[in-house]
Amino acid sequence: MRLELINTGTELLLGSTVNTHLSWLGQEMLPLGLRIGRQVCIPDGDVIREALRETAGRADVVLVTGGLGPTSDDITREVTAEWLGLPLEEDAGVKAWITAYMAERGRPLSEAAKRQAMVPRGAEVLANPAGTAPGLYVPPMAVPGTGMKSPHLFLLPGPPRELKPMVRDQVLPRLAAMVGPALGMRNFHLAGLGETQVAEAVEGVLTGMGIPEIGYCARAGEVIVRVFGTPEQLAAAEMLMAGTFPAQFFSSKDEELEQVVVGLLAKLGQWVSVAESCTGGLVAHRLTNVPGASAVVDRTFVTYANRAKSEVLGVPAELIAACGAVSRETAAAMAVGCLAASGADHALALTGIAGPGGGTEAKPVGTVFVALASKGGGEPVVGQHLFRVERETFKRMASQAALDLLRRRLIRMI
Amino acid sequence: MRLELINTGTELLLGSTVNTHLSWLGQEMLPLGLRIGRQVCIPDGDVIREALRETAGRADVVLVTGGLGPTSDDITREVTAEWLGLPLEEDAGVKAWITAYMAERGRPLSEAAKRQAMVPRGAEVLANPAGTAPGLYVPPMAVPGTGMKSPHLFLLPGPPRELKPMVRDQVLPRLAAMVGPALGMRNFHLAGLGETQVAEAVEGVLTGMGIPEIGYCARAGEVIVRVFGTPEQLAAAEMLMAGTFPAQFFSSKDEELEQVVVGLLAKLGQWVSVAESCTGGLVAHRLTNVPGASAVVDRTFVTYANRAKSEVLGVPAELIAACGAVSRETAAAMAVGCLAASGADHALALTGIAGPGGGTEAKPVGTVFVALASKGGGEPVVGQHLFRVERETFKRMASQAALDLLRRRLIRMI
Repeated sequence: MRLELINTGTELLLGSTVNTHLSWLGQEMLPLGLRIGRQVCIPDGDVIREALRETAGRADVVLVTGGLGPTSDDITREVTAEWLGLPLEEDAGVKAWITAYMAERGRPLSEAAKRQAMVPRGAEVLANPAGTAPGLYVPPMAVPGTGMKSPHLFLLPGPPRELKPMVRDQVLPRLAAMVGPALGMRNFHLAGLGETQVAEAVEGVLTGMGIPEIGYCARAGEVIVRVFGTPEQLAAAEMLMAGTFPAQFFSSKDEELEQVVVGLLAKLGQWVSVAESCTGGLVAHRLTNVPGASAVVDRTFVTYANRAKSEVLGVPAELIAACGAVSRETAAAMAVGCLAASGADHALALTGIAGPGGGTEAKPVGTVFVALASKGGGEPVVGQHLFRVERETFKRMASQAALDLLRRRLIRMI
Repeated sequence: MRLELINTGTELLLGSTVNTHLSWLGQEMLPLGLRIGRQVCIPDGDVIREALRETAGRADVVLVTGGLGPTSDDITREVTAEWLGLPLEEDAGVKAWITAYMAERGRPLSEAAKRQAMVPRGAEVLANPAGTAPGLYVPPMAVPGTGMKSPHLFLLPGPPRELKPMVRDQVLPRLAAMVGPALGMRNFHLAGLGETQVAEAVEGVLTGMGIPEIGYCARAGEVIVRVFGTPEQLAAAEMLMAGTFPAQFFSSKDEELEQVVVGLLAKLGQWVSVAESCTGGLVAHRLTNVPGASAVVDRTFVTYANRAKSEVLGVPAELIAACGAVSRETAAAMAVGCLAASGADHALALTGIAGPGGGTEAKPVGTVFVALASKGGGEPVVGQHLFRVERETFKRMASQAALDLLRRRLIRMI
């Protein structure tokens, strides 16, 4: 079943509002095995005419958001009726609802507001408990003068707080009734690998399993492999991922790396602390984004200056002078000092050059050392990376490397 | 000039990634007096063929994002060449760039990666300093077999960190050369006010000045007023903002609050430290996002647990027991303790309830106390806020309140 989405709204094209309808609706469709095959965003006003016409013969279901309100550029209802040759008739139930809604708020019932009670003949009203304009469902019918059939049409309000309950309560049940049993989807999240490396290692095998569709998405320090298939194919794909990338594959449940780390620490009943130089608090910020982080994070430190590394973490000033603030030795000493200063079970430390300034030939901008020390765990481990990206992406990639270093230690302890 | 945008990317339609390209590009076009007239989002793969064809004869300029990478579903380059009947030729410069880029990262140069060096004859390469796949500009030409002319085509990478510099440095100048002189635009950033308050105070005056277009954008803890006009109108609008909102108006140069704060501190030669509980490192992260932050940030602390507040900041355990960790008194003591522990000139402290758990009737989820202590500045000031939003937005709004509290103190010292 082919699904398309039309978003109307000049503010979306001007960029003053981010269009979150597509991602929200896309996710709502997945459990039904449905996908939005195409989305178009058009300004308020007359362009909706052409956008609707284009869908005939191509889409089975079309969702339209926006253009149902009372102002003069809200014309979705009228254009749809005209396109399908349907008269608009006042709906007594809707009119009563709008009248009561306005009265309750002490606002007058304008002619413009009354227009929202007009319903194309044959359409079903989708009640809108959060606003005045109802949604409409127009079943497929012959489009006059074209020999084509119209798609199942859902005309929906634009404001998210009106759209979301209407979709959940009234649109999804209608769609579920239209579709049969469906393919499932699973996202496999991997850290510490490039997109090409991942594709080269698994694409052939996945295709050989008869998996009908494979997709890749690269984020900073993360690759996501998206697989569609039957429940058996998805289970086989997950075994393949776990077998091929035992250390790198960290979630098939769309968790962020920090969620996985906080979950593992909570399961082990252990605490983590962090000493951050170049990431300046981002690792702590990510850990504390996870609800329940207070069970695994007690305190963390940003030690940006050399003096702070010495005074807060006890890193000898001579060591920094001899090896440099950005060095394997300083990272290790920061982790050991952080473990002592926090009393945590694990301490991560990061020191690097976020740029744009501060690089040298031996240690260019993008260099970062990430260290992990654990209680009773012997010498700290230190990884060295080079992330040649702008400052904020550098911080993100460095934080990802740190969280992943800890994750790899924790999974061996479970 | 009619502009259209094609976003390719299955992840956008599935909803796993929010499409921010439209809003970002929409805003970038405004200073040129250009607007995106239509945006379409399609999956990776073959559908790009139809989407490109549709634009001929309708659009003057088409921006395409995504589909330039090395994997098998990245076919924007090939489909464009086929559509326009252009042979693909290896570009020596691009190939050398990709080879060096991969070598530097110790990754092999695969056949798939080499495909990114193929350029349709007659296209201009748009260099991509942040990745391997270059962008392409294909000037208008006759579309074989149709009698139509193709639009100005810009093929751009999908990842925002590659897209944004390419658009700013290479696409906007080309578009600017195509359009005539345009109205200027200025964004006025305000903290600590609601959108409606701002609009009610200035919209009438701005309209009276003959300003042709005014827009508002509300972010977490910030309102942006966008004004178009002649240089004289923009200067008058800026005087109006500074006069009407002397404490709240903080930038007309699209600076983030943390950039303004770091700039003010640098000018004063002063240091700041932060003691964060509920924001868990976000204030430090934001401050250290600013290049040069090392001149004003020496160290900061995340003191998540009560014990950490006592041990790291010297907040008496009895005070926490008597007043609660989330209280005016604890926030003030954290700020005073942070000032002493860091030796900084100013210390911010935050303590609150980010949720979803932990609220009480007297202190519901969303409550936060923000304190500021300064060297020789007497008693710390403490503000109380209630941000009833989900966890990550709460952290953002609390960090905004803290940075703004400091900014207001600093502007009085300049």
